[in-house]
Amino acid sequence: MNARPEDFLSNTALVDQASIQPFPNSRKIYVTGSRPDIRVPMREISLADTPTGLGGEKNQPVYVYDTSGPYTDPEAKIDVRKGLAAIRQAWIEERQDTELLPEFSSSFTNQRLRDPSLDAMRFEHRYTPRRARAGMNVSQMHYAKKGIITPEMEFVAIRENLKLQEARAAGLLESQHAGESFGASIPAEITAEFVRSEVARGRAIIPANINHPESEPMIIGRNFLVKINGNIGNSAVTSSIEEEVAKLTWGTRWGSDTIMDLSTGKNIHETREWIVRNSPVPIGTVPIYQALEKVGGIAEDLTWEILRDTLIEQAEQGVDYFTLHAGVLLRYVPMTAKRMTGIVSRGGSIMAKWCLAHHKENFIYTHFEEICEIMKAYDVSFSLGDGLRPGSIADANDAAQFGELETLGELTKIAWKHDVQTIIEGPGHVPMQLIKENMDKQLSECGEAPFYTLGPLTTDIAPGYDHITSGIGAAMIGWYGCAMLCYVTPKEHLGLPNKEDVKTGIITYKIAAHAADLAKGHPGAQLRDNAMSKARFEFRWEDQFNLGLDPDTARSFHDETLPKESAKVAHFCSMCGPKFCSMKISQEVRELDDSQIQAIEVTAAEGMKQKSEEFLDQGSELYHKL
Amino acid sequence: MNARPEDFLSNTALVDQASIQPFPNSRKIYVTGSRPDIRVPMREISLADTPTGLGGEKNQPVYVYDTSGPYTDPEAKIDVRKGLAAIRQAWIEERQDTELLPEFSSSFTNQRLRDPSLDAMRFEHRYTPRRARAGMNVSQMHYAKKGIITPEMEFVAIRENLKLQEARAAGLLESQHAGESFGASIPAEITAEFVRSEVARGRAIIPANINHPESEPMIIGRNFLVKINGNIGNSAVTSSIEEEVAKLTWGTRWGSDTIMDLSTGKNIHETREWIVRNSPVPIGTVPIYQALEKVGGIAEDLTWEILRDTLIEQAEQGVDYFTLHAGVLLRYVPMTAKRMTGIVSRGGSIMAKWCLAHHKENFIYTHFEEICEIMKAYDVSFSLGDGLRPGSIADANDAAQFGELETLGELTKIAWKHDVQTIIEGPGHVPMQLIKENMDKQLSECGEAPFYTLGPLTTDIAPGYDHITSGIGAAMIGWYGCAMLCYVTPKEHLGLPNKEDVKTGIITYKIAAHAADLAKGHPGAQLRDNAMSKARFEFRWEDQFNLGLDPDTARSFHDETLPKESAKVAHFCSMCGPKFCSMKISQEVRELDDSQIQAIEVTAAEGMKQKSEEFLDQGSELYHKL
Repeated sequence: MNARPEDFLSNTALVDQASIQPFPNSRKIYVTGSRPDIRVPMREISLADTPTGLGGEKNQPVYVYDTSGPYTDPEAKIDVRKGLAAIRQAWIEERQDTELLPEFSSSFTNQRLRDPSLDAMRFEHRYTPRRARAGMNVSQMHYAKKGIITPEMEFVAIRENLKLQEARAAGLLESQHAGESFGASIPAEITAEFVRSEVARGRAIIPANINHPESEPMIIGRNFLVKINGNIGNSAVTSSIEEEVAKLTWGTRWGSDTIMDLSTGKNIHETREWIVRNSPVPIGTVPIYQALEKVGGIAEDLTWEILRDTLIEQAEQGVDYFTLHAGVLLRYVPMTAKRMTGIVSRGGSIMAKWCLAHHKENFIYTHFEEICEIMKAYDVSFSLGDGLRPGSIADANDAAQFGELETLGELTKIAWKHDVQTIIEGPGHVPMQLIKENMDKQLSECGEAPFYTLGPLTTDIAPGYDHITSGIGAAMIGWYGCAMLCYVTPKEHLGLPNKEDVKTGIITYKIAAHAADLAKGHPGAQLRDNAMSKARFEFRWEDQFNLGLDPDTARSFHDETLPKESAKVAHFCSMCGPKFCSMKISQEVRELDDSQIQAIEVTAAEGMKQKSEEFLDQGSELYHKL
Repeated sequence: MNARPEDFLSNTALVDQASIQPFPNSRKIYVTGSRPDIRVPMREISLADTPTGLGGEKNQPVYVYDTSGPYTDPEAKIDVRKGLAAIRQAWIEERQDTELLPEFSSSFTNQRLRDPSLDAMRFEHRYTPRRARAGMNVSQMHYAKKGIITPEMEFVAIRENLKLQEARAAGLLESQHAGESFGASIPAEITAEFVRSEVARGRAIIPANINHPESEPMIIGRNFLVKINGNIGNSAVTSSIEEEVAKLTWGTRWGSDTIMDLSTGKNIHETREWIVRNSPVPIGTVPIYQALEKVGGIAEDLTWEILRDTLIEQAEQGVDYFTLHAGVLLRYVPMTAKRMTGIVSRGGSIMAKWCLAHHKENFIYTHFEEICEIMKAYDVSFSLGDGLRPGSIADANDAAQFGELETLGELTKIAWKHDVQTIIEGPGHVPMQLIKENMDKQLSECGEAPFYTLGPLTTDIAPGYDHITSGIGAAMIGWYGCAMLCYVTPKEHLGLPNKEDVKTGIITYKIAAHAADLAKGHPGAQLRDNAMSKARFEFRWEDQFNLGLDPDTARSFHDETLPKESAKVAHFCSMCGPKFCSMKISQEVRELDDSQIQAIEVTAAEGMKQKSEEFLDQGSELYHKL
């Protein structure tokens, strides 16, 4: 099932057509920052007016966070063979701390480039790798600590606000519930300076490899909107390059804030090139997966040199963050022996296998500072992997898991010493009552570095529905302070997700992230809920579909029961039918005038008095049988 | 789309074939109580042995709660024209406090029975209605308060335990996580006396109308397993009797603990008769829906007399609990005027409309004690409806909602005075941070009567996915102490659920309920998770499918990626492929002997020492940039 080169190039429909359709009644807008090349994308959803009978007012458009990149911009010319425009290139160049390299630094990259059998599947390379000049540190954290507000920081500040100023001016922010933030402190409006200070403090990261100038800056931290990640990637068993690029554009269309390419099959290098060049969102990888392929799948044969070359290979391709299982220490490995499900992280078990085979400490741990040097030369962020995460409810919060977390805390401080941006990966499988302990311990051990969890799954008993078992845990840990949620698809534990599974996983996680934003009281988070509920109350069916996370599904579900177009403007729905409608009665209540309300109060008070007298009469026997 | 009688009777496939298939590798068993006619159904899932290389031990079967009734019993003869066997009839008769009536007491029932045009769709009536003898109270609460342990109570005690004794004897209960119960107090083993005391206290109910002797007793209370309800019902727009019976058997197959028949279309009386006679689980209704049909859909034309006749009609058919919106008081109605979505409960808005039209207090409230007299004559339980529940995030926890809840608390005490079993309905749409307040307020206002919530939905922005937005809230409120969760299907807010939607809603809610049982530390709840995880670790694919809530979907998802039968015994899966497998490495860790572990500890300690010296060397500069 791997791509044969001739198939790949002969295919004229390289862009997934479904991914480039505009959303209904939506318009891609760009908010311009302090300079004309800071153009922050948002999706503006236009709404119909309130029907005349209900007041007839205009409804403000709703602005939603837009991860879909240029694919949903009708003005943009999309050619996946050429990749996306390098929107950050000027910013990177202006800093004058990087240089273009005469050739790639990775010997593996150069070997692949020289292999003519790969020509047909190779991305048309116009891209020259870039690296920090000698002695320079090009991480966003480094700039932040120096007090510099980069264009990337300004971009994310504008992006997080979602034109909140307009909503505030329109008085739409007044009626929102207060949140419960568990120590997060989200300002009423995100400023570029706030972004800078959070990045400097290590409490947020902006994954932004200098070799991925195509990506639209975004931020991961608990004082910002909760983000989600979608995984794609081919495997030894299935999938082609083309499918992976389609999954990328499909995933970002539905809201994936970052994409991890977890490929483990053939042509990982070439697949990744297509992905990075076409990705509007940061790309993460687990470099040890590719390193393992390079040694024929034999974990014992891994070496630091092979991993090092792989890190450089991927850093020069533009990968924005690396999952590295640096905390799987030799001494933790035997602690997993009594577990229900041992080590379930693929990367974690690769390192455990290596440690056991060589009877040596994890070479990612022992070479951690050298890795920091690589990371800061390209601004690759650490995603410190939880190789010992629990793979079952039984193993949640055990000594191996928490031991590794302590080590990740130690490594975070080393990474920060090098100004390398860092997030921490978390579980996994955790019953609800043990979720908060994970969040609290991560914050304290890792100095508030952002937490990035896989779910967690709150029960093991529903294969086929693990997007839901984990969506529950994801919403909760997002509320408690988790900054990014790694999606789980319905195929988890069973097989590899197809496009439909990717979408289901992403929508589920958008729900979890948004529920968390609401619960934390993120300013403006409730605007979309309110717009939806108002549209619902006013029977603006089209607006309901369009405001939803998945307009297509909402519309098709509605049409299954009431397919006619007239039903979409009807003042009733299939639940109650045309004769009686609860929404209609509420509208009548609204139309009560003051004298009518006063009359009700009088009648009610009389009734209350009478009832309470009855009640008193019976009082003596009321509790006699309890 | 309503059933034409001739269609209905000409259809030879009256039993939904999909609902009577046995579950794979499962066997229906009955645990016999203190008398031979207490036969408590469970499903026994047999498991394969652990592969020889991993120990080769036998794996105990897992017993799961079984709501599917005789439909999944290959010994049972199913004929939906005749209905299920009346397993409780002898228990009811033995109590000698009921009498068979010469005819139905409801004038509406008698009118329907005399209408020859309905003959073709009528359930073949062999059923004679039963009522308490004059002055008698036949509620389970009444017996419980008198200290009587009924066969129903013994039945539910056995049912809740799921053969826990066997698991305990096999040492399988030892490794479970402690729960966090928020004041619930679940005993290590449920006894019949505990059931009695909880029912007497009002903290649990056993919905068990004496006219529904076919139902298998079950209990709703926060010191028991969390239950779920599935809604079915035809509407003015769509659905036939046959479809509704199929939805019933389909819903209970997948785990619905009770079924509410929310029919609002034609032939509600006849539809209900088919449903009750064929239902192994308690049936709930909202009687005002039918009363409204009787007055042509004009809420103002409702009267107490029409409702009263409807209550008696339904009580004599065997409905086990009535949702009654007795708390929608005149004075609360204007409080909804400023809401985002007004009154969204159909029953609530019917009563609000009536109150406004007549300028009088809610007649369900004013006649509450008369209703109690009806309830206790048949043992129908109250489900006090939350007619003012929030229909949007914006309206959560507002004055109207909480005002009504206080009134429901007042009514609970009146119901208890009459020994009428009572549960309280709750919201609705509530953001995560406001869920616990709902639970806490319900417990305190309503004297710990069981809470029964619809979700709650934790965000409004995902029409098409409201099973998920609400599954999150349902899991959380179940953990906090909610006794029963009313499912929400993917069609919520959009249309009427089809069979597939019913299944999706139920599986989602089984996940929420089970996640809550785990979090509360319900004894034995983790057994199924542990069995699943052990099967996963040992690559027992068939066992993984069979232990899941939905074996069919799990199997089909697996087979999409690796369809061959051989893959189901293979020691790898599609995620990592055959060459490298993280589970395999964990197995190697398990095989480490003591001397190997000791050697690891020595090496690790040396490494630590070295690392810590390096760390000390750098110590002075470690935080210099932070």
